[in-house]
Order: sequence, then C-alpha cells, then structure tokens
Amino acid sequence: MNINNFLNDVGQGNADIEVVANGEAVSAFKSNGQTNKMLVEQMQKLAEIGVNFVACQNALKAQSIAKESLPEFVTVVPAGITEIARKQTEGFAYIKP
Amino acid sequence: MNINNFLNDVGQGNADIEVVANGEAVSAFKSNGQTNKMLVEQMQKLAEIGVNFVACQNALKAQSIAKESLPEFVTVVPAGITEIARKQTEGFAYIKP
Amino acid sequence: MNINNFLNDVGQGNADIEVVANGEAVSAFKSNGQTNKMLVEQMQKLAEIGVNFVACQNALKAQSIAKESLPEFVTVVPAGITEIARKQTEGFAYIKP
Repeated sequence: MNINNFLNDVGQGNADIEVVANGEAVSAFKSNGQTNKMLVEQMQKLAEIGVNFVACQNALKAQSIAKESLPEFVTVVPAGITEIARKQTEGFAYIKP
Repeated sequence: MNINNFLNDVGQGNADIEVVANGEAVSAFKSNGQTNKMLVEQMQKLAEIGVNFVACQNALKAQSIAKESLPEFVTVVPAGITEIARKQTEGFAYIKP
Repeated sequence: MNINNFLNDVGQGNADIEVVANGEAVSAFKSNGQTNKMLVEQMQKLAEIGVNFVACQNALKAQSIAKESLPEFVTVVPAGITEIARKQTEGFAYIKP
C-alpha cells in the first residue's frame, strides 16, 4: 500500500526499493490463509516491476519457516539488520513502517 | 514532547525539523476533543518557530479527513513515504517515533 | 539479539554500534527482576566489546530513574532524539527496533 503510494508518486523506475522483513514480519511471506495469499500476490506484482523483497534468515529460523517455502521472488540474507544498515550506507533512505 | 526536547538541546534555529504524518497519525491534526486540541495548539507553537508539519494525502483520504479541515500550518503532500525518503536524501536525519 | 545477529554477520570490530534508549526503553537499564537482569548482563557483554549504550536524560526523568542507578556502561545524554539525529549526520545508519 505504502509502496504503491510511493510508486504512484515518484513514478516506476525512478527509485530503487527494497523491503527487508525482519522479526515477525517474515511471516508475511507465508501464503497461508486468504489475507496472506493476497499480500503475497501484491508483493509478486511489485517484485515484477523491480521491488526487492528480502527476508532475514535469523528471523526465518526463529519462526521455523523453511527458506524453500518462501515465494521465489524473496531473497534471504543472513541478518536483516546488516542489510538495513548496509543499504543506508549505500544511500538508501530508511522507512520503518 | 520529543521535538521540545530536541529544540531545548540543540537550540532553536540550529536545525530544520519536519514532522511527516502518515497513516493513522494524520488524525492528530484534527482538533476534535480536548486532548487533540491541546496537541494541535502545541504544534501551532512549534510551527510558529519554524517546524514544518506535513500530512500524507493518501492517509487523509483513507481516513476521510478533508484537507480543508486541517490547521493552516499543515502542508499536504501526495505521499508521506516519498516525502520521508526525499528528506533523507536531502540530508535530514530520520527519527521514527 | 538483533545486535548479536549483526555482529555475527559483519564480524566484531567492523562496525560502530550505539544503542540509544529513549522513552520507556530506558527502563531496560534497570536490573530489577530476573528478565531485566539477564538483559543488562547481555548489554554488559556487548559494552565490553565496544557497543555504546546511551540513555536519554529526559526519559530517565520522566520515569523517575536516577542516573546513579544505571549500570556503569551506560552514557547519559540530555536528549536521545538529538543523539539519534547527530549520529545519522555522522554517517551512522539508523535502525528502529
């Protein structure tokens, strides 16, 4: 929703966007239940237009979510916190939902 | 409160401050009820000494708040998320309350 | 936990880390109760390997926590919000838990 607002405002292709899911948020990538299925479909569409979706391996482990069960468009990184810090040092702005 | 602490610490005029209200937070600009009325008065005072208050149009729409009903000191932007990202690229620090 | 994940990922000594406790979070520095005692011990260990722990004086005051009651490894700053902004202007990435 936020990302759609952002893309509508700046225009597609005018910004690099990465969504890093940390902690409990990684469960958003599980397409169980109707609500989550719709969410995953929305993310799939955003992934197709260039938005990166990243999951924290520590968080997946803590929630017993197998890497293999994630949608194909999700990249797994060892630690979400490092990814967030690294992206900021690369010039990305940070927005905490 | 946070902003007052900040201004007391760095001194007025020594920092540019912008408060971007996104999502449910835009309702803070509605001066209905006693609590909110006091909050709006505090913001009014901060606006007078140079603090910018910004509301996300998407959020206003989602909560059926008319732009015209907002206090005069509030600026409306199409998408709060873009505003937050843009300010960071301009060198603003980001603080999520 | 997050900090441990971060250090495991980037390696100790490869990043400067500062934890700024603001608002209610300053109570984490009080080692009353078993849970908090364990937390303070974890922080103590992180402090020994170079992580800075900072508490906001405004927040301490608001919660009637005496500066003297804090663990030795905690630094008190007048306003946490200024510290967070300053660190970002110094090049620190910001991560809101």
